[in-house]
Amino acid sequence: MSELAKVLGGRPRRFYGWGYADESVSTEELARVVATFAKRFGVSGFDVTPPPRVSEFRVRAPRIEPPAALAAICTGNPEARLAHSYGKAWLDSARMFRRHCPNPPDVVAYPRDESDIAELFDWCTGAGAICIPYGGGSSVVSGFEPPESERPVVTLDLGNLNRVLEVDTTSQAARIQAGALGPQLEAQLKPHGLTLRHFTQSFEISSLGGWIATRAGGHFATLYTHIDDLVESLRVMTPAGTLNTRRLPGSGAGPSPDRMFIGSEGILGVITEAWMRLRKRPCFRASTTVRFGDFHAGADAVRALAQSGLYPANCRLLEAKEAAYSPDARAEGALMVLSFESADHPLDAWMTRALELCADHGGEWDRAALESDGSQHAGAAGEWRDKFIRMPYFQEHLTARGIIATTVESAITWDRFRDFHAEVMHRTMKAAGRIFKHPSTFTCRFTHVYPDGPAAYFTFHALAEKNTMLEQYREIKQVMLSALVELGGTITHHHAVGRYHRPWYDRQRPELFAQALRAAKHVLDPNGMLNPGVLIDP
Amino acid sequence: MSELAKVLGGRPRRFYGWGYADESVSTEELARVVATFAKRFGVSGFDVTPPPRVSEFRVRAPRIEPPAALAAICTGNPEARLAHSYGKAWLDSARMFRRHCPNPPDVVAYPRDESDIAELFDWCTGAGAICIPYGGGSSVVSGFEPPESERPVVTLDLGNLNRVLEVDTTSQAARIQAGALGPQLEAQLKPHGLTLRHFTQSFEISSLGGWIATRAGGHFATLYTHIDDLVESLRVMTPAGTLNTRRLPGSGAGPSPDRMFIGSEGILGVITEAWMRLRKRPCFRASTTVRFGDFHAGADAVRALAQSGLYPANCRLLEAKEAAYSPDARAEGALMVLSFESADHPLDAWMTRALELCADHGGEWDRAALESDGSQHAGAAGEWRDKFIRMPYFQEHLTARGIIATTVESAITWDRFRDFHAEVMHRTMKAAGRIFKHPSTFTCRFTHVYPDGPAAYFTFHALAEKNTMLEQYREIKQVMLSALVELGGTITHHHAVGRYHRPWYDRQRPELFAQALRAAKHVLDPNGMLNPGVLIDP
Repeated sequence: MSELAKVLGGRPRRFYGWGYADESVSTEELARVVATFAKRFGVSGFDVTPPPRVSEFRVRAPRIEPPAALAAICTGNPEARLAHSYGKAWLDSARMFRRHCPNPPDVVAYPRDESDIAELFDWCTGAGAICIPYGGGSSVVSGFEPPESERPVVTLDLGNLNRVLEVDTTSQAARIQAGALGPQLEAQLKPHGLTLRHFTQSFEISSLGGWIATRAGGHFATLYTHIDDLVESLRVMTPAGTLNTRRLPGSGAGPSPDRMFIGSEGILGVITEAWMRLRKRPCFRASTTVRFGDFHAGADAVRALAQSGLYPANCRLLEAKEAAYSPDARAEGALMVLSFESADHPLDAWMTRALELCADHGGEWDRAALESDGSQHAGAAGEWRDKFIRMPYFQEHLTARGIIATTVESAITWDRFRDFHAEVMHRTMKAAGRIFKHPSTFTCRFTHVYPDGPAAYFTFHALAEKNTMLEQYREIKQVMLSALVELGGTITHHHAVGRYHRPWYDRQRPELFAQALRAAKHVLDPNGMLNPGVLIDP
Repeated sequence: MSELAKVLGGRPRRFYGWGYADESVSTEELARVVATFAKRFGVSGFDVTPPPRVSEFRVRAPRIEPPAALAAICTGNPEARLAHSYGKAWLDSARMFRRHCPNPPDVVAYPRDESDIAELFDWCTGAGAICIPYGGGSSVVSGFEPPESERPVVTLDLGNLNRVLEVDTTSQAARIQAGALGPQLEAQLKPHGLTLRHFTQSFEISSLGGWIATRAGGHFATLYTHIDDLVESLRVMTPAGTLNTRRLPGSGAGPSPDRMFIGSEGILGVITEAWMRLRKRPCFRASTTVRFGDFHAGADAVRALAQSGLYPANCRLLEAKEAAYSPDARAEGALMVLSFESADHPLDAWMTRALELCADHGGEWDRAALESDGSQHAGAAGEWRDKFIRMPYFQEHLTARGIIATTVESAITWDRFRDFHAEVMHRTMKAAGRIFKHPSTFTCRFTHVYPDGPAAYFTFHALAEKNTMLEQYREIKQVMLSALVELGGTITHHHAVGRYHRPWYDRQRPELFAQALRAAKHVLDPNGMLNPGVLIDP
């Protein structure tokens, strides 16, 4: 069993990109997607770069050796180190396809328990090393990428801390180790009839600790959108010591200690466990797809729903051309994927009222396709969901063809959304016309919605030149991210900040807060060894 | 117009206790309550101490004089200073009835705008003074009481900052000055058809900034229990500068800056404005009262409701003897005050299912009294609510008679609640039997409920000896508060920490968090002038 497999339950993963090595898109799926893109870009075919092999990288020799006591849980193996160098953003994939990885971690450590972590902290402190917590590796913002530094880098892969330690069925909560990946924790909760139900697109290869450290966004489009609300208490190891917050359903005792660590992106400590709020597995469902003549009519309906107090589980609005994954740029209008779910009661009253609100805004739906029988995956909505979950497996095939596929996501209040949307679209398409030779596409959907505004998620596709594609990518990304922040949105609704969003995050968050956070970090991490450069300067 | 009246919209308040000077309980109300307590304690009458007058206090001369530029907004007037010395806890009232107030603020300042606050900061910094932000004055935890210190104390009464500055009806949000009291801000929102609907028991004399600084708990029993969730963004003045957080419906960009200031109890800065999430005024209501044979059967029903996803607006469980305000200690069972409200849809489906859950746990209700006609204040539930809002006006009359009336409130997960409840009750009643000559009462209700646990609110009444009543109070309070924290609850669900809860808060919150918070405070308040001693040591 390889070093990587040891951590990942015996199932090897691709070192250079998304997912498990034994999982991929089928030849037919790929052919269909490639044909779609060829038509979209107006080309007859693509130059295909083969996927990288470990032997094609010149992997720098480790600059540090673990002490004997830690040797059994550490590796300097090139594949393991490459696999822990980049996340899963398009830029990460593109750099891998360039066989470019000059700055891998020197050592990857796989602690088995907290005493291992304490020893690793001691070692890093003594050696002046940087220590980077690593959960599932799905970051799309360079969240765990080693910084360029003279200090050696030890990456802590928490994959061995993957157990559900305690389940409280009365309060519907569980104590879960932070390294547990989505499927691992759900499998352990299932026998209790409970679920965390935090389904990110990265679910397969993202971890509880990673979700908490990055304020991940889950399955629910309303109410419990971020992992933040599902955290009951945390256990965090910092270089200055270990702390437990108290397990409470609610509290008003000072600023929330949990909220200091939720979103801290590995700079304050390593989250090792959390008590998480769960729910019974739903047995009632109602879902449908509603069509709107244009995106803003759909947005008005979403707003009415978000302000109605009906709290749909899903209420995603997609531009029709994105929903259909269509090569036809003329596809117009919008689709709302609308669903309710409950472990307690039938949802007819909820759905009936929701559809009245949709009708008020010109929405139309197929009454025959209205599902309330527990079948979750049929119809247009189901089709889109399946694609959504499978989508990351396409990434390497797009990168190999020079196709840029990237997203930016934000949130903004309703009063500003229409102008925000128009201007983000305008600036991006204008820049795309300058940067790319072939026609690009840029579409918008809502991933989550609030009474006071939507989380808007923009997807960009373009055909780049193979030898300048990183530069083209950076140029268009700069335009998009600057637009989000300049127009009043957040730089990220649920992808986190990492290294990629840092310059724009700096413009968004109050400088005095950065100073206060830096002071807090100095207390918890006096040597500045934890993920330096993420969120704040050392 | 007096100095106080100037701030409080021309309506003078009692300097020594609750509420407006022109508002009081009626002779009949008072006679009934006094008779109830006499029967409960088994006494024929009470020795009544007359309410204090300003002239009965030896008010220390101010230790500091404002500079000429600030003289117009500052006062050393004894009544104003006494009124800003203590909050509204029973202990505060008792000290006032003892004519004991050795440590009033030296100056009360009434800034008219942010530039006044900046000048006051500068003055305090230069003079080495302590600066204490003051909202509505309703603290029951000594949240703004000047500490014993050689440093002079300037209290910043934010009562002039009471305007709604901007209303966004599309996003249902408003920018509101922090000094606005509950009725002031609701009156300004009403023409827009919107409401913050954050109805604390202190609503009449508590402010938006105070709610945010103390993580106050409002009207809603589920979902939006704390003010925390209603904050869209903040504007905070600190001695190191002013900061604005970005107005966003949701974000995942690093630890939430808002959450650092929410609950900061005046130690990090002065909140001057907030964008708050509002809602349309409800037009659909369904409410009833459900009776249970015992408190824990009721608690099981509340748990089922809290975990159902029905999200009742009110779901408070009261011991029957508390609900009835009954002199009859044998009153048994529990009442659930259950209601739903909406601005969007009729609530029959919600209430029907909620009552099924109540029936599953033996709940009974009067079908005739089931209200869904918009009449909110009829029936047992309405009767209780009216008493709830009026109750603080009784405080001075109880204190005058040596009757201790105090509460402690906590939250704990469901799995531990039954033992927690029993042990808190046991320890308190055992201690009460030792401390008090007459029979005491101690009852429990749920003020807010979560899927993972209830917020439990305990009310204690005892007849003390006039000359030792403060000591008796401190002794019983020590027992109660220690029980909450030792048994795993929070020291406060929504009353905040202040100076009264500080020793127990220290046992609850992780020491490393205190150190991090202290470091953050040093950045924002380098001279340690803001409310020192609250939450953390200087």
